[in-house]
This record gives sequence, structure tokens and C-alpha cells, in this order.
Amino acid sequence: MTSVIGYYTTQFGELWEKSFSDLIEESVDGVLNNSFMDKREIDAIFFANMLAGVLENNLHAPSKIAEILGVHIPIFRVEAACASGGVAFHLAKNYLESHPAKTVLVVGAEKMTDYSPEETTNALASAASGEEQEAGLTFPGLYAMMAQVYLEKYKYTEEHLAHISYKNHYHGSLNDKAHFRKKITVDQILRSAYIASPLKVLDCSPISDGASAIILSSDKLLIAKANHKAAVLASEVATDTISLKGRKSLDEIFATRIAAEKAFNHSKLRPKDMKVAEVHDCFSIAEIFAMEDLGFWKKGSGGKKAKERVTMYGSGNDLIVNTSGGLKASGHPVGATGIKQIGEVFLQLTNQAVNRQVKNAKCGLAHNVGGSGGTAVVTILGN
Amino acid sequence: MTSVIGYYTTQFGELWEKSFSDLIEESVDGVLNNSFMDKREIDAIFFANMLAGVLENNLHAPSKIAEILGVHIPIFRVEAACASGGVAFHLAKNYLESHPAKTVLVVGAEKMTDYSPEETTNALASAASGEEQEAGLTFPGLYAMMAQVYLEKYKYTEEHLAHISYKNHYHGSLNDKAHFRKKITVDQILRSAYIASPLKVLDCSPISDGASAIILSSDKLLIAKANHKAAVLASEVATDTISLKGRKSLDEIFATRIAAEKAFNHSKLRPKDMKVAEVHDCFSIAEIFAMEDLGFWKKGSGGKKAKERVTMYGSGNDLIVNTSGGLKASGHPVGATGIKQIGEVFLQLTNQAVNRQVKNAKCGLAHNVGGSGGTAVVTILGN
Repeated sequence: MTSVIGYYTTQFGELWEKSFSDLIEESVDGVLNNSFMDKREIDAIFFANMLAGVLENNLHAPSKIAEILGVHIPIFRVEAACASGGVAFHLAKNYLESHPAKTVLVVGAEKMTDYSPEETTNALASAASGEEQEAGLTFPGLYAMMAQVYLEKYKYTEEHLAHISYKNHYHGSLNDKAHFRKKITVDQILRSAYIASPLKVLDCSPISDGASAIILSSDKLLIAKANHKAAVLASEVATDTISLKGRKSLDEIFATRIAAEKAFNHSKLRPKDMKVAEVHDCFSIAEIFAMEDLGFWKKGSGGKKAKERVTMYGSGNDLIVNTSGGLKASGHPVGATGIKQIGEVFLQLTNQAVNRQVKNAKCGLAHNVGGSGGTAVVTILGN
Repeated sequence: MTSVIGYYTTQFGELWEKSFSDLIEESVDGVLNNSFMDKREIDAIFFANMLAGVLENNLHAPSKIAEILGVHIPIFRVEAACASGGVAFHLAKNYLESHPAKTVLVVGAEKMTDYSPEETTNALASAASGEEQEAGLTFPGLYAMMAQVYLEKYKYTEEHLAHISYKNHYHGSLNDKAHFRKKITVDQILRSAYIASPLKVLDCSPISDGASAIILSSDKLLIAKANHKAAVLASEVATDTISLKGRKSLDEIFATRIAAEKAFNHSKLRPKDMKVAEVHDCFSIAEIFAMEDLGFWKKGSGGKKAKERVTMYGSGNDLIVNTSGGLKASGHPVGATGIKQIGEVFLQLTNQAVNRQVKNAKCGLAHNVGGSGGTAVVTILGN
């Protein structure tokens, strides 16, 4: 069974003193040190990044990583917008299925804060359709339209959304690698400025720098001697139209539904078997879609469930969601996000989540979305 | 055995009337029609592209392709500069090794001619190291430095390089999909303007638009009934430092040597078993490096062999190289190139290369390089 045997993430945040290469190097060194491994034990590297070509004039990362590490092994760069990390992990797992007794690194990194918010926002918008870009839409606008449909259809208010951000900021306060460690009140969220109605600043994940790395292995001996390990029970990818106008409905992320169904079928598990989940809350509404589309919550019940904060750490409930702080508070360095999500589930499953450790976390799920739902990845870990 | 069962390429050239999406759509429709297949028979897609994010504000291609095709299957975008196509094919083959009885599309596309040569050249330079970019180096400059070392070390002249371009333009004249179909003389090449000494305009591959697509399958029934098929005997990737200054020697592409050694070992074949090869001649000097590093020619003999035109169609020799016209004459739409190379070998092995058909082509090799040699991919097909 392919297993995660190591994880490291840099601080997420505005890391102006660190370059893109610094972040990659820190995450790779960190995960090797954490796992007491040498780079010579790594057979291939899967690297997730979205924006370095656009923002940093930096493409062909494989050979840049080869130079940093001094290796000649296969290195693959994968891009699927904000789902780059989850997709890289998926391909890495797939690689090991045909390479028994091998070990790979999965690294995600993004450097986003050295540019004006406009430059970064425009670069991010390149993951939308050409028509949507020409109409002046960026991702807050696209998710705002979906949020409008959802709130209208199920008779919820902006306050229902606010409880997602409230919870995730509380979780972020427990995670020393999170971009934001400050708790916020529902009132503060509701009073924050509109970005695209009904989404306000405090409904949106931030622009962050950061890098995260995982060691994934199919080497039984290596897995046996690892201090921490979690088996990969499923990793599934699905796609959907890039354009919102091509979708049958706007109150769901259909690609999530497909990927989740495949992942649960493959693992022979059900949503209620999950004790922790990291879901893609790029905006507060996105966590509600995720919870419904993953099968945790009944369609249309998400606003109510969000307001009840049923997935909050300390609630004593069976499923705690986004213990890392989610994209909202942990931060969203795009290429790193999907790796950090799987890494957080790994920390929970291996009892390394310290002050946010969920009890009896035997099984967990990570859910990573690209753009407005054009790509979705669902990963299930267990032990 | 994983086999190529279909191939289609668009025209390569300055295709101002066609968009990036048009090219992708034409190549996908073309390969499906060619192979009498329906899109519902495709289980996943691997997509190679380098520059659409930078030049076209166009990232997250997987969901754009999902929209074009109306599918929800896994779609993966891979980027390794000019080796993107070869790497995408490698990952597709790997995918099928753990997915028996499945079929995938491998598509490469690039839209490069809608921009000023300066914009495109700068975008391409993002595959070089930051330090090299800051020094004002672009790829003609990097390969020129390597060419200077080679010519000096082995006492060759610019005329030796010119025979590579001469041959490849002759081959291009036989390929109706080639960007340049005009034969050129050695004298014309030697009189063309310097780009970066010793490389002149006619030593350099052009900036092109184009898309190419392959169908790759591990489905025995589908392979059995395919009209044309070639088995994938090896596909290997290696990396090297991005920076020339990090290399031990400048008269070789070391990553090619590693990938070739692995590919020949894996296939249990030798260079002399190859009857056709498509090698990465982004510059004339690069074909000489390729021929030496792949083991076809002894190190240092390449200038002499090039001048003897031993690999030219019609020479009657055992190995004919770059029958498509190579990057030089067939054109170099970056993401498509690696797919077109494998596609050309497939055409030769399945007796579909019409007026440039090499007799008894039972085995062939494709060789794709990223940047100044930071990535190399070697693929061997046979039947």
C-alpha cells in the first residue's frame, strides 16, 4: 500500500524575505530531515505550482529543482490552478503503483506576495475561461455568483457563510504555520468590506507564500521503519467545464461529486468514516459546497450546518473540518495548498497535530479544487 | 504492452487564423477520427503546454479541455519547457501501467506567433535560470556557448553545423505538415545573419503554432483491432542543472545520456537497432549533441558525420534522422514538439510516412529536450 511517510510545510504568509527557490528548498530539506531520509533515497519528484511562469518568469521548474538538490532523477511539474497540489499527489501515487518499492517527493510551492494584488489577481484569473476574463470576472466574482444562487435557493443569509470563516480562523489560531492566527468574530466578518456581494474580505482566502512537501512511498521496508505513516486509500481526480455558463447547476461543484464518489467507492469507505477533512474553502461558500458535494451534508443543509459550527474543533462531533485553518486562515499559496491539506490529514492521523489534535482520527479526507470547479481532487488517508 | 494506436498533427506554422483552443480541438478531433474512436473511449488526457499561461493568460487547461470535449475524466497538464510533450507522454505511459485496459489521449499544443518575437523569446527564456535571464541570455545564446565549446574542442567549423539544417530542410520539403517546406543550400545557411555566434538564423528552429495528439492504450482488444499500432518499448526522463555553469561539460547534454542509457537498458535494444530517430534539433548543434549523447555517434565525431549527411533520407544508410524535418524545418510549437516527434516515429513504424517513408523501419527513437538540457526524454517505439 502506498503510504505517506513524511510531511513538512513552511510558514504560510507574506514571506518577503524568502524567494520561490528558498521556499522549495526549505520544504524539501524539512521533509527529508523530519523523516530521517537522504535525497538519494528519492526516485522521482512531483512538483505543483501554478503561477511562477506568469509572475516570476520562472518555468521549467524540474531542472531548477534538479539544480537545488543536485540530482538527475525524473522531476515533473504539474499545473491545475489551485488544484495543482492535489493533482501532483494523485500522479505521484499513480507513479508508485507502477514502480514498486520506490519513494517520491511531492512538493508544492507558490510565491504570490511580491507582486501588486492586481498582478496576482489577474494571474489567478487566467484559470478562468477567456470569456469570463474578458467580462472582468475574477474568482471572488465567480464564487459570488454561485453564492448568490445558493443563498437565494435555500434561503440563507451572509451570516450563515460567516460561521465558516469564524471556525477556520479559530482553527488557524491553533496552527503555528498558518498565515492568520487571529480569531475573528462573526460581527467582524459581517462588517468587513464587500469584495463581490455576498462575499466580503473575511469570506475570502488570502494571497500567501509558502511551500509544502510530502514523502510518498511504495517501499514496504521503508514504510515499516517510518516513525509516522498513513496509507493512501484513494486519490481521484475529476474535471468539469471551465465556464460557469456550461454548468447544469451553480449551487454545487459537480467535479467534487464525481471525484468523491470514485474515492469512496475505491476505498470502500463512506463519508461518516472520516474523522477529519481538509476541504477547499477558497471562499466561505466553497466550504459549504464541499461539505455537501463530498456527501458529508445533505444538499441545501449546508448553511444551517455551518451556523451550528458542527465541524469545529472542540465541538465533540465526529467530523472536524479544516483543522489547519483551511485556505481561509492557514493561507492559500496555490501550488502548496493541495499538499498542505493532505499533510494536515497526515498530521492528524499520526497524532502530530498537537493543540488541534482530533481524537481517534483513523481516517481523513483532503479535497482540492481548481478554479471555479474545473478540477477537483479527493484524497483519502487511513491507518 | 502499452501501444500507440493513433496520431494526428495540425499543420505547424504561423497559424494566425487559429486560436490555441482551435488547435487543441483540431488535434483531438483529428486523432479520434483517424483512429475511428469516440471520445467516450478515452479514460484520461495528458496535456503538454509551456507558454499559454505567460503569453495567453491561459492556465488550468485541463478544465478548458474538459469543456471542449464535454467530459469529466481526469486531465493533467504537464510543463517541462520544450520537453513538455515527451514528459506528458512518459506520464501517460506510466499511468497506463497501473491502469490495465485503459486508453488515454496525449495532446501537446502551443500558440506562439500571435506575439512579438521579443515577447515570445522572453517567455521562452523563463525556462533558463534566473541568473542566465538576468545576464540577458536567451536560448540561442546558451546553445551558442555550447556550440563554441564543441567547435573549438573538436576543430569543426560553422559549415559542419550547416549540414544539419540542410538535411532537415530537405526532410521538411517532404512533410506537408512542416512549417518550412523549402529546401535551402549550405551556402544560404552560411550567409544567413548571426543570432548568437556561431549560430545563424538558419541554424535555429522557428517560433511556430501547432498541436499534435496521440492515442496510447493498454487495452489489448483495442490494440488488436487498431489499423496502426506501435508498442512503447521505453520512455525515460532525466534532469540536470538548469544552469550551464553547473554542468561538468558543455559539449554534451548529460540528461540525454542518462535517459538514453535507461531507455536502451529497459528495452534491451541498442542504438544500432534504431532505423529512424526524431532528435531535438532546436539548434543545429543540438542535433549533433543528441546523436552523440544518444550513442549513435562517437563523442566528437558529430561534426564529421553531419557533414557526410549520413542520416539523410535517401542516403541508404541504416538510420535516418528527423524525417519530419526536425524542429528546424517541421517547426517548434513547444508543447506539441515532443508529441510530434513520437508521432513521426509512429508514422514511420506503421508505414504511413508516404514520400519520406524509411524502409524496414521496425524500431525508432524520439528524443525531446527541455531548455538547455535541464530535462531530457527518450522514447523507443517498436513493432
